[in-house]
Amino acid sequence: MKKIVLYVGAFLFSIAGYAQQALWGGGDIVSPQINKDNSVTFRILAPKASKVEIEGDFLPAQKIKTPFGEVEAPGRVQLKEGKNGVWEYTSSILPSEMYNYSVYVNDFKTTDPSNVYQNRDIATITNYFLIGNGQADLYMVQDVPHGTVSKVWYNCPTLGMERRLTVYTPAGYESSNKKYPVLYLLHGAGGDENAWVEQGRAAQIMDNLIAQGKAEPMIVVMPNGNGAQQAAPGEAPNSMVKPQFMNPKTMDGEIEKAFPDIIKFVEKTYRVKKDKNNRAICGLSMGGFHSLYISAYYPNKFGYVGLFSAATSKQINNKNTSDVYENLDQKLATQFSNPPRLYWIGIGKTDFLYKDNIDFRKQLDEKGYKYTYVETDGGHIWRNWRVYLTEFAPLLFK
Amino acid sequence: MKKIVLYVGAFLFSIAGYAQQALWGGGDIVSPQINKDNSVTFRILAPKASKVEIEGDFLPAQKIKTPFGEVEAPGRVQLKEGKNGVWEYTSSILPSEMYNYSVYVNDFKTTDPSNVYQNRDIATITNYFLIGNGQADLYMVQDVPHGTVSKVWYNCPTLGMERRLTVYTPAGYESSNKKYPVLYLLHGAGGDENAWVEQGRAAQIMDNLIAQGKAEPMIVVMPNGNGAQQAAPGEAPNSMVKPQFMNPKTMDGEIEKAFPDIIKFVEKTYRVKKDKNNRAICGLSMGGFHSLYISAYYPNKFGYVGLFSAATSKQINNKNTSDVYENLDQKLATQFSNPPRLYWIGIGKTDFLYKDNIDFRKQLDEKGYKYTYVETDGGHIWRNWRVYLTEFAPLLFK
Repeated sequence: MKKIVLYVGAFLFSIAGYAQQALWGGGDIVSPQINKDNSVTFRILAPKASKVEIEGDFLPAQKIKTPFGEVEAPGRVQLKEGKNGVWEYTSSILPSEMYNYSVYVNDFKTTDPSNVYQNRDIATITNYFLIGNGQADLYMVQDVPHGTVSKVWYNCPTLGMERRLTVYTPAGYESSNKKYPVLYLLHGAGGDENAWVEQGRAAQIMDNLIAQGKAEPMIVVMPNGNGAQQAAPGEAPNSMVKPQFMNPKTMDGEIEKAFPDIIKFVEKTYRVKKDKNNRAICGLSMGGFHSLYISAYYPNKFGYVGLFSAATSKQINNKNTSDVYENLDQKLATQFSNPPRLYWIGIGKTDFLYKDNIDFRKQLDEKGYKYTYVETDGGHIWRNWRVYLTEFAPLLFK
Repeated sequence: MKKIVLYVGAFLFSIAGYAQQALWGGGDIVSPQINKDNSVTFRILAPKASKVEIEGDFLPAQKIKTPFGEVEAPGRVQLKEGKNGVWEYTSSILPSEMYNYSVYVNDFKTTDPSNVYQNRDIATITNYFLIGNGQADLYMVQDVPHGTVSKVWYNCPTLGMERRLTVYTPAGYESSNKKYPVLYLLHGAGGDENAWVEQGRAAQIMDNLIAQGKAEPMIVVMPNGNGAQQAAPGEAPNSMVKPQFMNPKTMDGEIEKAFPDIIKFVEKTYRVKKDKNNRAICGLSMGGFHSLYISAYYPNKFGYVGLFSAATSKQINNKNTSDVYENLDQKLATQFSNPPRLYWIGIGKTDFLYKDNIDFRKQLDEKGYKYTYVETDGGHIWRNWRVYLTEFAPLLFK
């Protein structure tokens, strides 16, 4: 044992790097440090810097002027240099949430090297942390039974390729013979099949809602909504490139027409209930758009529909690129002649799609189609989409 | 459609940040850029920096002196400042491999903000890239059938907790009734159940070896070898802390005694063959140590054993903390009285455990126990462990 200890000593002493296994990393610096009062202290080791800043969604927002109007941006704050080149900042007391931040060292934008918890939004990696005792308790890993998260490949003849999706099966799935309802949960533009389990914390949310008895145990299927992609960047052949916001074949009707391939795979592979009232579909932004059109194009497939900050009909109707988008009025009439049990619309007041959602609701109101409407603060942000999932999922399959 | 385009324009124009969904990230800079000749160009936007460097395992190694002798460290190189504050460096032509690197801006160590491909080794996040047309073809996602990778929780009564593991099921598992053999693949100190599918590229390696007919289709189970942990940092309650190299309950005999709980779960949950000759165990470093002692303590469980840069017996025998480690000679005698079909040892010439492996092999040689020995260049590094998996897996279950 002594010898091992000695070796470990040698290991830890050496800041050697990859030539032996990496055993360093930000030294002893702890950042972020969540304090007892739920303020947060950030520490960045940058001895040769003249300015160190943090930009985060927990700081008062900046307003940035653009030709399209004023846009809210995350706030920025300067850290103060302390001993040994460690810069420090302590936030105000933060309400329970999942927060993201970036670090600027002399205007060079990067991540906090002491915080290994990072996630990717399109081509940007930021750090994150969670403050509990409130809404974010649903996003945190709690001492409850946990479901399984799988990355699975399925055959998609409609698009002519093998494609990847993420499947959440609830705790107990493996050890029972029970059949489950299925929620299809769709990402937005620039996202992929990883988005909802990474930024969206969908597995934690479902674990917690199910454990609390608030949501029915269900399978959650998270496909890739980019019709030209087999999988998330880096997960398909020759795809290790910089992810993009606009991807081909996302709004040309093909991804919607390929959706039955996913349902077919899921209903063949998992123990699921196979009727309309045991299928739900929802999505954020472009995924809300897809949910709207998939559920209208296949009007008897989904008993529950959720549009989270969705791109709605009006924008697309101008250009009938696909019969999927044609005659929405007529499609909605068919869909609502045998209406879904729930048609749910959620949007933030400062979302750039707010007005379009008003227009879409008018379209529904004129015909007397019933829907549930939830309006929140905030814009086109993951914070809202996590909240919407926590509100939508408990309404399903009851 | 026009309206959508306008919105997208507003979106892309705005470098706004989290107040609307993140749609920026390193601007238009491409880094790393793998050139046609397999040299690699790195670009870092740091207009206010006076020095920008890259540290990577593709650069000539530095030697660093420590009280314990000279240690190899990854090489470092300075980038040159070009137009608009973009610093640039082009490497020499690189042989096929998976490479890791870090960026230093005025000695502030961080990641390349234009490269979203990152992985974590204990508490350090580095960027990576792959160069094909050689060994790394096995690590890349190829146009072959892909297995499923699942994060699954199981009950571990021996340690008194629910624990998480990673399971790879080969392509075709979901659509067949076939039973598969199982490889238990263990991580090293500071690692967890994510290590082999992230740094180790185990899913890609197995997909490719199986598609080429080099390895039998098998299930690969990657447990967490830290007996005090339920799961990887961030994946268990209250675990969102900085990961550590030394974790409690990794070498006290308990994790070895808890191993049958994993086998029991796997053999109950998956369609697997349940005899010794359809079970293999291997691991790197501490995981090699675990493989050695688990297979010796349960001498009729594993038909195949692999020790990758393993901590071997000698260090631990001094202190008999557990009957798992006592009387290794006697345990090996029992194990080799009905010997495993394969006992495989691999180590690099500059590994800090090289001499201990010589001693352990002497112990085996003295008794005439048969084993396969592979010696490579290099030290205690993931590059070797990926190679060892590509050499070990094809020898199993044949």
